[in-house]
Parts: sequence; C-alpha cells; structure tokens
Amino acid sequence: MTTFVLASQSPARLGVLRNAGVEPVVRVSNVDEDAVAAALPAGTTPENVVIELARAKARDIAVAIADQGRALAEAGRALPGEFTDSVVVGCDSMLLVGGQLQGKPLTPEVARARWAEMAGRSADLLTGHSVLRLRDGEILSEAADCSTTTVHFAKPEPEELDAYIATGEPLQVAGSFTLDGMGGWFVERIEGDPSSVIGIGLPLVRRLLAQVGVGATQLWSDPAH
Amino acid sequence: MTTFVLASQSPARLGVLRNAGVEPVVRVSNVDEDAVAAALPAGTTPENVVIELARAKARDIAVAIADQGRALAEAGRALPGEFTDSVVVGCDSMLLVGGQLQGKPLTPEVARARWAEMAGRSADLLTGHSVLRLRDGEILSEAADCSTTTVHFAKPEPEELDAYIATGEPLQVAGSFTLDGMGGWFVERIEGDPSSVIGIGLPLVRRLLAQVGVGATQLWSDPAH
Repeated sequence: MTTFVLASQSPARLGVLRNAGVEPVVRVSNVDEDAVAAALPAGTTPENVVIELARAKARDIAVAIADQGRALAEAGRALPGEFTDSVVVGCDSMLLVGGQLQGKPLTPEVARARWAEMAGRSADLLTGHSVLRLRDGEILSEAADCSTTTVHFAKPEPEELDAYIATGEPLQVAGSFTLDGMGGWFVERIEGDPSSVIGIGLPLVRRLLAQVGVGATQLWSDPAH
Repeated sequence: MTTFVLASQSPARLGVLRNAGVEPVVRVSNVDEDAVAAALPAGTTPENVVIELARAKARDIAVAIADQGRALAEAGRALPGEFTDSVVVGCDSMLLVGGQLQGKPLTPEVARARWAEMAGRSADLLTGHSVLRLRDGEILSEAADCSTTTVHFAKPEPEELDAYIATGEPLQVAGSFTLDGMGGWFVERIEGDPSSVIGIGLPLVRRLLAQVGVGATQLWSDPAH
C-alpha cells in the first residue's frame, strides 16, 4: 500500500483528508517560503508562485525522507511505509483580493480593515499542489498544478464583524476567513472546489495522483469501512 | 440568549453548525414528508417543495415545544431556553439530476446506476430552510427560502467507483454523494454555497434569522472563545 505523506502542518488540511478517507503521515517542511518566492523570475504568475511553493515543500520532505531512510537502513532498522512506497503532497494557498495577495491579518485592526475591503465583493483563492511519487527514497515521478476558486463574501453587520473578530478565528488564517468555520456565515457562494478553499483540493490532488500512477482510493485507510 | 433549535437529525447539519459556532438543541420532527409533498398543489416548483417541507418540520417542532412548555409550566417546572426564547430551523434538501429528483440509493446497484448518470455532468442541489421565532411557545415571526447550488461531478474510474460504493457512504445520502466526505474526491467544482450542499446553508440561515430579528452571531455558543 502507498503511504500518503502530507507536507503541511495545517489542521484544516488534515481534517479534509481524514473526512475523505485518508489518514496521512504528517511531515512539516523547513522551507523558507519568502526565499523561494524571491528566487522566482520577475513576473511569475500567482498560480505559478503557489505551485512552486507547494513543490519546494514537497521536495524538502522528499529529501528528508530519503536521508532518514538511508540512516534507518544503515542502522538495520525496519522502514515504515513512507520510506518504501509513498506520495508526498505539498500545498500552498493564497487569496487575491483586487489582485492583491492577502496574508494572515494577525491583529483585530488588520482583520477589520481587510473585511471592510472584502465585504460584498469577491476574491480568488489559489491552491497549488505538488505530488511526488517516492520509492525507496527516489523520486519516480512528479506532478503539480493549481486550482482557482472565486469566493463571494457577504456584508456582515458591524456587530457581526465585531463578534467574528472577537473569536480570533480570522486572525490566523490567510484571507481573514475560513469556509468551514464561523466564517462560513459570511461566504455567500463560491465558484470552484470548496476543499481547495479549506487548503487541500481533493479533485486536483486526485488528478495529480493519477498522473503519477496512483488512484486516490488506493490511499484510503480503510477501503471497506 | 436565544436558543437555536435544529429540527433535523442529520449529523452532517449538526457538524456544520458546531463548526460555525452554534451548539443547537436538536429536535426531530414526526412529519410525514410524502404526505406534505402530496398535499402541495400540482405544479409546485422543486424550490417550493423543499421550502414547504422545511416549514412543515419547523412547525411540527414549534407545536411540540409549545405543548411541552405548557405541560412543564403547569407542573411548576423550570423552562429550558428553547421554551422561552428560541429560533426553530427546519431543513430540506434534494438533488435534481437532469430535472429528476434523486433520493437515497440504498443499494450498491442503484448507487452505481446513479453515478453512471451523474459522472462528468452537473446537478442542482436545492436546500430549503424555514426559520420560526418562538417566544413562550408563540410563533412571533417566520421566514423561509431556498438556495440552489450547482454541483459538477468528476468521472470516477471504475475501480474508484467500486471503492467508493464499497465504503457504503453514498448509499444513505440523497444524491449518492457527500461533499465533505469521501465523495469530495469526485466533485470537481460547485457554484453556490458549500454548506447548503452539506445540508444547512449558513448564509441563507443568516438572512432568514435577520428577517426574524436575530443576528447569527448572537447564537454562537461562546462568542468570546
């Protein structure tokens, strides 16, 4: 059986995968995202930025797995599944409001300013994924792409926005909202894949897995449950 | 504080509400849905069918709450929140594929036939809600509406469809898929509100609550968490 390695520490991504039948091995990369982005050619599209960031994270984990696998083998230790047959999935998401990249607001003041701009308007959520097929520490094949989902925001009343910001939820998420939490009250509609908005686009990952020769359902932890 | 009464036994709806900050009182109605639908005038639109079914369920619970509240009061017992100040939310969803209403497939054979029809195509998911504002057992006001979301299905490979049907997940759900479970691998995109596809449309419920004078955030179980 092929092991699914999630190269992300996001609890939201892990939750989507678990609900979708996959219990991944979680590995968190040490990629300097700012350095990766800065090294891209001028004029790189936002779509290619999220793809390259996802790829950098997946490769970082693939290298770590290869190194640890060698060390374990040399020590005569048994190799867990991710070292022998696995797919590593890297992820990166960004929200563009009026063409501008939105990060985490971190403070109530910034979150309030962002919502003043977003309310009643739409934004594009870009999610990039990189899928690496690993066998015994070697990268056999690789696929990557990006999906874009348009999110249409409601206009929260001032007291609703106060209550939402007071929960703290929007402060730590890129774009100042969640689709699957309390922010869901304030998203009127989307055009695209809701799982990509939460952070891991299941239909896109399925297509990329097929490109490296793995069926998504082969990764389900208990296909018969 | 106003109590949110969910007139549905759906765990998916309960999960959406909890993630969105509301811990509802769950009450399950005894409405004969077939009888309600049969009593509607010929030519009633699917949108009005789901609205009327949602309304019938909410009213059934409102009557039960009024009766129990009277009995508790006569017995000199304390009245929990739903008897003094509450909103009752009724829900009904249906999926239309090629204009045809889709129920629960129940058997693997029917699920397979449904997917043969749905794969690579789109369908409309209709979710109706009725919101009743109750005070001391009286219905003060009422609002109801329906939202429609278009769901575009992927084309699962035969072995993927076999694996999906083997999980049992699609057998017990109207439309033979879930958006927030394993079915999420096979939904390419939607146009509309993802929470309405899961069964309770948060932005629609928010609008209906506002119509009966209640802010959605007033219902959050712990506004300061």
